[in-house]
Amino acid sequence: MRLSRYFLPILKETPREAEIVSHRLMLRAGMIRQQGQGSFSWLPLGKKVLDKVCQIIREEQNRAGALEIMMPTIQSADLWRESGRYDAYGKEMLRIKDRHERDMLYGPTNEEMVTDIFRTYVKSYKDLPLNLYHIQWKYRDEVRPRFGVMRSREFLMKDAYSFDIDFEGAKAAYYRMFVSYLRTFERVGMKAIPMKADTGPIGGDLSHEFIILADTGESGVFCHRDYLTMAVPGADTDFTDDAAIANIVQHWTTPYAATDEMHDEAAWNEVPTDSQVAARGIEVGHIFHFGEKYSKPLGAKVQGPDGKDHFVSMGSYGIGPSRLIAAIIEASHDDNGIIWPEAVAPFDVVIINMKAGDAECDRVCEDLYAAHEAAGLDVLYDDTDQRAGGKFATADLIGIPWQVIVGPRGVAEGAVEVKRRATGERDVKTITDLKAALGKKA
Amino acid sequence: MRLSRYFLPILKETPREAEIVSHRLMLRAGMIRQQGQGSFSWLPLGKKVLDKVCQIIREEQNRAGALEIMMPTIQSADLWRESGRYDAYGKEMLRIKDRHERDMLYGPTNEEMVTDIFRTYVKSYKDLPLNLYHIQWKYRDEVRPRFGVMRSREFLMKDAYSFDIDFEGAKAAYYRMFVSYLRTFERVGMKAIPMKADTGPIGGDLSHEFIILADTGESGVFCHRDYLTMAVPGADTDFTDDAAIANIVQHWTTPYAATDEMHDEAAWNEVPTDSQVAARGIEVGHIFHFGEKYSKPLGAKVQGPDGKDHFVSMGSYGIGPSRLIAAIIEASHDDNGIIWPEAVAPFDVVIINMKAGDAECDRVCEDLYAAHEAAGLDVLYDDTDQRAGGKFATADLIGIPWQVIVGPRGVAEGAVEVKRRATGERDVKTITDLKAALGKKA
Repeated sequence: MRLSRYFLPILKETPREAEIVSHRLMLRAGMIRQQGQGSFSWLPLGKKVLDKVCQIIREEQNRAGALEIMMPTIQSADLWRESGRYDAYGKEMLRIKDRHERDMLYGPTNEEMVTDIFRTYVKSYKDLPLNLYHIQWKYRDEVRPRFGVMRSREFLMKDAYSFDIDFEGAKAAYYRMFVSYLRTFERVGMKAIPMKADTGPIGGDLSHEFIILADTGESGVFCHRDYLTMAVPGADTDFTDDAAIANIVQHWTTPYAATDEMHDEAAWNEVPTDSQVAARGIEVGHIFHFGEKYSKPLGAKVQGPDGKDHFVSMGSYGIGPSRLIAAIIEASHDDNGIIWPEAVAPFDVVIINMKAGDAECDRVCEDLYAAHEAAGLDVLYDDTDQRAGGKFATADLIGIPWQVIVGPRGVAEGAVEVKRRATGERDVKTITDLKAALGKKA
Repeated sequence: MRLSRYFLPILKETPREAEIVSHRLMLRAGMIRQQGQGSFSWLPLGKKVLDKVCQIIREEQNRAGALEIMMPTIQSADLWRESGRYDAYGKEMLRIKDRHERDMLYGPTNEEMVTDIFRTYVKSYKDLPLNLYHIQWKYRDEVRPRFGVMRSREFLMKDAYSFDIDFEGAKAAYYRMFVSYLRTFERVGMKAIPMKADTGPIGGDLSHEFIILADTGESGVFCHRDYLTMAVPGADTDFTDDAAIANIVQHWTTPYAATDEMHDEAAWNEVPTDSQVAARGIEVGHIFHFGEKYSKPLGAKVQGPDGKDHFVSMGSYGIGPSRLIAAIIEASHDDNGIIWPEAVAPFDVVIINMKAGDAECDRVCEDLYAAHEAAGLDVLYDDTDQRAGGKFATADLIGIPWQVIVGPRGVAEGAVEVKRRATGERDVKTITDLKAALGKKA
C-alpha cells in the first residue's frame, strides 16, 4: 500500500480525552475515531489489526472444534423473558421498541439466542458435543464508558457456547477452550496467564480469566514466576484427546495465579519469595461453566443413551478482540508509539523514502516495494513528500515491526538501512542482499 | 470437516413461511435460522458462504482503491439532524434512547457518519481521491419483512463512499466502482447487468443498479442480448487509468438495458427483435452519485489547488452480501437444491461414505479426505451413519460443486464415483487417478 493512497490520519497532538496510553496511541496512530460516547469507528490501520486478531481467534476456535455462526445484534425481548434476564439485566441493556411497539434489545451477550438455536435442532446426545461461536458486535450501555475501545459501549466480542449432555462433557469442552485460549493469546504475541475467577452461585472451579501483564493494567495480579516461561501447547495439539487436554489444563492451573479479587494470602505465602510475581494485569478473555442455568428455563434438552431427556450442561467463552488490541498496546509500546507483535501488525514492513522525488531513491523504493509484495509481505510504502523526520516518527508511532529506510547517501552506495521497531536496532544492508533474502521468501 | 462433528440442521419439510425458493432452500439446507421478524442467524454452512462472498467483495473493493474501515452500528441522532434526515427518514429508522435519554439510531446507512469522519481529517485536495467502505450490519425497520434474507430488517451491507474535489473526480470514482462491481458479480459466479437507475432530485445519469437475471426475480428487465456474452474486465485492470476505466463503462452502458421502472419503449424498439431479452431480475448492487447532498449540510470541504474551499463531491456504492447470496440461489438451483458457483460454495467437495462402518469404505474415505485437505481443498466428509439415499439428498440440497461417492462395490474395484452437482454428470475414477489429480493441486 502506498501511503499517498492510504488514509492514515495521524494526530500530532495528544488527545486530551484519552486517559490511558492505548487510547492515546490508537487515536494518534489514526487507528480509531470516536463517534460518540463509547462508540468508535475503526479506520483502515485499526481495521487491519482487528482483522488479524479476529482471524487468529477464529483459527484457534476452529482448531478446538468450535463452529462459527453469526447471530443478529438485535434480539427479541421474549427470549430474555424466558431466562428471566430481561427484567434482571439492568440499565446496561439497550432496550428498543420497533415500529410495532414490540420490545427488542441490542444483545449484550447471546446465551439465550444460542440456546434457542440449540433447542430448535438438537434432540439427541449423538449430536454432542457442540460448541457454537460468533464474532459479533455487542452493546452495553455503560454509565461511563472510558479508556477507548478498552471499555466502550459498542464492542466486538467472540463468544462461544458449549453444549454437553453432562458435567463431564461440559468440563472437557471447557478444557478445550482453556487450551484454545492459551494458543490464541500466544499467537497474538502476548503472554496471558489463566487465573481462577469467581463462579458466583454456579459454584465449582470452572471459571478462569486470562490476564495479560501490563504496568498500566486495571487490576493487581499475583502469580508464580513459572508462568512467564511455560511453553504454550503447539499447533499439533490433539483437541479430540480429552485426557491430553486435561493434562495441559492441570499443568497450567497448578502454580499459583490470582487476581486481587480472588487472592489468597495463605496460598501466596507458600510460593517461594523469589518466584512471586506481583504485577498489574488486563483481562482479555473469560471462560465460564454455568451448567443448566439457561438450558433449564429455556428447555434445551437432549435424549441420552438412557432414553431419557437431559438438560444440557453449558459454558460460555469470551474474548473481546477490540479490548485485546488495546491490551496488546498497553503491554507493548514505548515513548515513540506502538510496538506491534508481528502476527497482528497492520503491515509487516514500512519502506521509508527519505527523499521522495529523488530519481534514485524513488527507483530503489519502487523496486523494493515490488520485491516485498512479491515475497507475500504486507508492505506500506511511505512515498509522501513529508520530510524524513516526520516519516520516522510516523513509522515508530504506528509500530510496524520492520522499517526499510531508503536515503540518497545509502542508495549511492547501493545500501539501505533496516530497522527493527521493537529494539531500535539498525542494520545497513546492500539492496542486493535484501532482495535476495526476500527472493527466498517468495 | 467431518459431518459427524459439524452442525448442519437439514430440514426434511419445506417451511411454510418461506414464499420464495432461496428462502426455502436456505432454511432447508440449514444455512439460516429465523430469530424474529426479518432477523436471521447464519448457521455454519451459511456463515461460510457469507464469508466467501464478503471476501470477494472486499478484494475487488481494495483492487479498485477503496479502503476498508468499520463504523459502528449505533449512531448519534445529532449527525442525522445536521443532514436533515433524522426527521425525514420515517419509520424504517430504528430510533433508540440510551440510559441518559439521548437520541440514537441503528444505522440504516452511513452517509452522515462517513462524511463526519472525512470532515474531521481531510482538509486538502492532495488527500483525494478517497473511497472508504465497510461491511457492517444495518437495520431497516420494514413494515413487512419477507423473503428471508432477501428483504430482512437486520442485514449485512457493503457500503462504500467516495470523496472528490469536483464532478470529474467523482465521475472517475463512480466508474471505478462500476467496473469493480462487474468484476465482483462475475467472481461470485453471476452475470450481473448494469441498468440505469433513477437519480431523483440529483439528476444526471450516474446511478446504476446491477441486476442478476433469475426467473423468480422481483422486477421485469429488458436488455440487449449482447450483455449475456460480454467479457468482464480481468484482474489486471488498471484502476488508476481513468481513461481505460471510462472506456469499460462506456462499453457496458451502450447496449440497451433497463428495469421496468426505467423502461423506454422507443429505445427498446430500436433493439433488433432477436437481440431483445425480456426477463426478470434481482437487484444485487446499486451505485449512486449524489454530489454535495451531504458534504454541504455537514460542511465537508477541502482546499483546492486554487487555494479556495470546495465542498466535496460524493457517491455511494452498495452491495448486500446477504441479499446477494439469496439472489445467487434464485439464479442457481434445481428441484433437488442449491447449485453453488465454485467461488462461493461452502465446501469445494463432499465425500460421501455410502457405508460408514465398512472397514474398506472407511479407509478409502479417510484416505481421500486427507488427500483433499492436503490439496488445499475445503472438503466435507459425510461420515455419518445415515443411509446412502439420505446422504445423496443432503449433498444435492446443500449444493457442494463436487461429490465423491465411495461405496463398497466401487471400492472393491479400487474406484469411486465423482459427481458434478451442476450437471449431474457422474464419472467413475480409480482412487489412484483421483489421488494423482489431487497431488498435482497440492
